[in-house]
Amino acid sequence: VLGFELFDSDGERIRGRFAVEDRVRQAYGLVHGGAYAGMAESLATVATAQAVATEGRIAMGQSNHTSFLRPVTDGHIHAEGRQRHRGRGTWVWQVDFTDDEGRLCALSLVTVAVRRRPPS
Amino acid sequence: VLGFELFDSDGERIRGRFAVEDRVRQAYGLVHGGAYAGMAESLATVATAQAVATEGRIAMGQSNHTSFLRPVTDGHIHAEGRQRHRGRGTWVWQVDFTDDEGRLCALSLVTVAVRRRPPS
Amino acid sequence: VLGFELFDSDGERIRGRFAVEDRVRQAYGLVHGGAYAGMAESLATVATAQAVATEGRIAMGQSNHTSFLRPVTDGHIHAEGRQRHRGRGTWVWQVDFTDDEGRLCALSLVTVAVRRRPPS
Amino acid sequence: VLGFELFDSDGERIRGRFAVEDRVRQAYGLVHGGAYAGMAESLATVATAQAVATEGRIAMGQSNHTSFLRPVTDGHIHAEGRQRHRGRGTWVWQVDFTDDEGRLCALSLVTVAVRRRPPS
Repeated sequence: VLGFELFDSDGERIRGRFAVEDRVRQAYGLVHGGAYAGMAESLATVATAQAVATEGRIAMGQSNHTSFLRPVTDGHIHAEGRQRHRGRGTWVWQVDFTDDEGRLCALSLVTVAVRRRPPS
Repeated sequence: VLGFELFDSDGERIRGRFAVEDRVRQAYGLVHGGAYAGMAESLATVATAQAVATEGRIAMGQSNHTSFLRPVTDGHIHAEGRQRHRGRGTWVWQVDFTDDEGRLCALSLVTVAVRRRPPS
Repeated sequence: VLGFELFDSDGERIRGRFAVEDRVRQAYGLVHGGAYAGMAESLATVATAQAVATEGRIAMGQSNHTSFLRPVTDGHIHAEGRQRHRGRGTWVWQVDFTDDEGRLCALSLVTVAVRRRPPS
Repeated sequence: VLGFELFDSDGERIRGRFAVEDRVRQAYGLVHGGAYAGMAESLATVATAQAVATEGRIAMGQSNHTSFLRPVTDGHIHAEGRQRHRGRGTWVWQVDFTDDEGRLCALSLVTVAVRRRPPS
């Protein structure tokens, strides 16, 4: 819906990006904070879900902390997720967001809960 | 884009809601964490911006911490924002999210930076 | 070590306080942010641990988000913890900190993991 | 009070450590979450304060988000702080905590407000 693109993950890293278009801009024309938080959430939960699927487990976001550092008005936002912790019950990802010039725009820490898949 | 509705604010409280439709669902059919974080961000920044506009100041999200507590698959998500701090440089909002039965689904703390409006 | 006092908890609420003395002050003479975060952590984990002990479970802090709102230089800091979520694997507490005049000084959201007690 | 040691900072990096003794242990004998949060707060505010002092400005903690990843019962906790953002009004630091074997134990994101020094 927001135009997020996610690239391949190996369970340790995941990258993604989105274009700065009106659907992710707030009233002043800047990238909406929710776009960064939403992208971080997607990267962390998708990368974890892929990694634990073969063990019959699922991944669900548990908390998301995002700091907004630099206003961006156009171009693309590039996200780089890095897995920092792989526990039995939770994984933790750090996501750095940069603009087209490589400047840091936002930072996220996302905690993902890993649970056994409920019988369907 | 995500179907958020925001209701009137007096600078102390703000309410909003969104319908649980595919545009806010993740792969398992649950409300995406980014929808809660994005809604909290919108409520806090819009309510602050409205309150400080008459002083020639603007509001921009600075950080967003959201905890996801209960999976929701349909109905509406109801958000209630409450201003907890009104400083010179930052405002802090707490947002509680409930489902149609009034059960708490998510919680946010949002810090909004307040700055002088740049000359246009 | 920091002079924290914790009062009775019923699993829903817990209160505590500490005196603003040099052991909790930073270089400018204000209450150190770590004192608020540490107090929130103690309140949330102790209240959860007491509530789950009879089920043979233990509680351990998982994450702590604290916002510092108002500098305090003397008197006492009063903490009021409120349990906001009681899940199978995690509990979430919100802690409000006030000074002797009842003004909000800091706010915490603490997530506590609940696990089966390891056989000793 | 808690035995924190802070080492030299150049405004970009700062390191510190503390010994795992009873004053930083909680009831189960593990390092208390407040010790990590407090150490992160000290590193970030001291490093920022030193860097901005020559401009007649002061630094005060604004928010602290700490995730606890691995229980530690003895040895030392080593902290490595890295400045991630240097804005006009706020600096953001990321702090990684490791045990004596170099395993990640906790992670913090700290936002520090930078203000003009009040006339004394």
